[in-house]
Amino acid sequence: MSDPLRFNPRVATIPFKRVGILGGGQLGRMLALAAHPLGIQCRFLDPAPDAPAGDVGELIVGEFDDPTALDRFAHGLDAATFEFENVPVAAVEQVARTVTVSPSALALSVGQDRAREKALFQELGIGVPRYRLAATLEEYGRAAAEVGAPCVAKTRRMGYDGKGQHVLRSIAEADHAWRALGGAPAIFEAFVDFSFEFSVIGVRGVKGEIRTYAPIRNVHQGGILRTSTVPAPGLPQALGDAARVHVAAIMERLNYVGVLAVEFFAADGTLLANEMAPRVHNSGHWTIEGAVTSQFENHIRAVCGLPLGDTSSRGTSVMHNIVGDPLNAAVRLADPRAKLHWYGKEPRPGRKVGHVTIVTEGPTG
Amino acid sequence: MSDPLRFNPRVATIPFKRVGILGGGQLGRMLALAAHPLGIQCRFLDPAPDAPAGDVGELIVGEFDDPTALDRFAHGLDAATFEFENVPVAAVEQVARTVTVSPSALALSVGQDRAREKALFQELGIGVPRYRLAATLEEYGRAAAEVGAPCVAKTRRMGYDGKGQHVLRSIAEADHAWRALGGAPAIFEAFVDFSFEFSVIGVRGVKGEIRTYAPIRNVHQGGILRTSTVPAPGLPQALGDAARVHVAAIMERLNYVGVLAVEFFAADGTLLANEMAPRVHNSGHWTIEGAVTSQFENHIRAVCGLPLGDTSSRGTSVMHNIVGDPLNAAVRLADPRAKLHWYGKEPRPGRKVGHVTIVTEGPTG
Repeated sequence: MSDPLRFNPRVATIPFKRVGILGGGQLGRMLALAAHPLGIQCRFLDPAPDAPAGDVGELIVGEFDDPTALDRFAHGLDAATFEFENVPVAAVEQVARTVTVSPSALALSVGQDRAREKALFQELGIGVPRYRLAATLEEYGRAAAEVGAPCVAKTRRMGYDGKGQHVLRSIAEADHAWRALGGAPAIFEAFVDFSFEFSVIGVRGVKGEIRTYAPIRNVHQGGILRTSTVPAPGLPQALGDAARVHVAAIMERLNYVGVLAVEFFAADGTLLANEMAPRVHNSGHWTIEGAVTSQFENHIRAVCGLPLGDTSSRGTSVMHNIVGDPLNAAVRLADPRAKLHWYGKEPRPGRKVGHVTIVTEGPTG
Repeated sequence: MSDPLRFNPRVATIPFKRVGILGGGQLGRMLALAAHPLGIQCRFLDPAPDAPAGDVGELIVGEFDDPTALDRFAHGLDAATFEFENVPVAAVEQVARTVTVSPSALALSVGQDRAREKALFQELGIGVPRYRLAATLEEYGRAAAEVGAPCVAKTRRMGYDGKGQHVLRSIAEADHAWRALGGAPAIFEAFVDFSFEFSVIGVRGVKGEIRTYAPIRNVHQGGILRTSTVPAPGLPQALGDAARVHVAAIMERLNYVGVLAVEFFAADGTLLANEMAPRVHNSGHWTIEGAVTSQFENHIRAVCGLPLGDTSSRGTSVMHNIVGDPLNAAVRLADPRAKLHWYGKEPRPGRKVGHVTIVTEGPTG
């Protein structure tokens, strides 16, 4: 254990960095709130003038495919990153001509394509649900037949929060899926009779150092994350450990810099990888209070080339998303333990407008 | 224990409040960083265009005695407060004609005057060091003689971080003190042979609810706080408990709303009150990581009429101020447990430019 009083000459002074973030949603907002205590300011590019991150940093309003806006955004930055995975790869590539963007365009492009994700998982020996790709109506039918029903058809790209998905109860419903997904290139996945869903969040620094957070048990409703709990109740230690090793392997393979989230299914004592997100992740919001260093701070540290912070858990954490209507947005501050994170968004049905975390101290288990 | 999932209809939605803060230093900066997750934005008034809080909220550059600047500041606020105790009472009174200011001008005026502080402590039966007031050269001599040497002469008003103080080794040095303090109205205090210094931070809400944090052991050098440790090593439980009761009594007496800090000396099994600060306090910075709810969040909650958050400690905390030159500012991020808070100030000798907190989990004691 190092002496906190001792001066460490190997560590430079904070250089007042300015980090650019493509996207100005709540993830960007929480990144900036984690960056300020490090003496780092954030600049955002987002098409929405009322983007939540605009409260806590400089907001450039512009489209991600507007070269002028991208140049304005990139000018004078010390480092850059993105806060949602549907930002065009071309935008990252343009910014990367001015300033280093982490994670890389490669990691982003893999994270944007369910087929490439699956291929990466398989290459690394990580189990995945049975799946088939399909790009034509005929292929939709064949994929459904080969995967079997029930199954779920997902667009290969641009899906989030349950959007871009269609469940097939019988293989005859392939044409319904075709219409529902607008004929987009799709991936058909077998339904997993999973015990539960969990995720693992890892971070990798510029020098290759890797830390992972404790596995998180997640509950979704309507395709939207509702609660995350750490330690993950009922998850066998061996499965959780294996998942952490897998996440480290994925980051190594991609020469990844920043925070990566991977969702898993736990079924019958085995685990299957579902998908990955090359960014800070909703299932990691508990780390603000529930870990020594939050996913947001560690992402900023990684992107800026700073040493990573401790990812150890502090007690037992439960994170509840606040989704949708104003009633749901009613704040549970009456519970003095409740840690509220309000995103400054107009409440709408199905929209994440905030979250609350409660940490219970004491032995974890 | 309440169920965090249960909707509590008594608690309103967060109304996107805007809180005004007189002063834009690091305390204001940390208040704003605590306010954003509650959906609350801060506006600052400060004479310095590069005030640290300007990074995290709207900064109005103006003097505290400029009525126009004060009116601009107050316009459209939902609540107001201040972040240093030398803001003119008249400024608070002007703002209070537009919007409620907490703590009140009364609490501020007591906190600005060492003589009124002492009188308040005595009225509430709280021990204080032997002292005398003096406003003329003759009174300086008499006060020194009556208090006895060694003693310390302090200006009644406008002191902070050891400024406005003069130590007398003999009572014959009263004229040195007179020159050193510019002949200002002063208070002569007997030197306390104290075992150590500690502080207690409390918060009181608009409905009168009171919470206090665990007592904090503080180490000063050159009049500047260097480290704060919680739980306070060597502080007898009974003394700490008594101090918490005293802080609650002070808040009750002043009908106080917000965070109040009181510094104590512990000597020979008794405690003496040194001074109070009607604001968030340097010795409470550890609460950001070391308590369930930080002093900054609880001050904002109190000022906005929201329920107070839990002030319980989380583990053992040590806070180190980063004072002065750039070398000292070198960041201890190499220790993965270190939580850095950089204020965005230009380092200068004797200037607080940041702090680092390390929390060790496990049983406190």
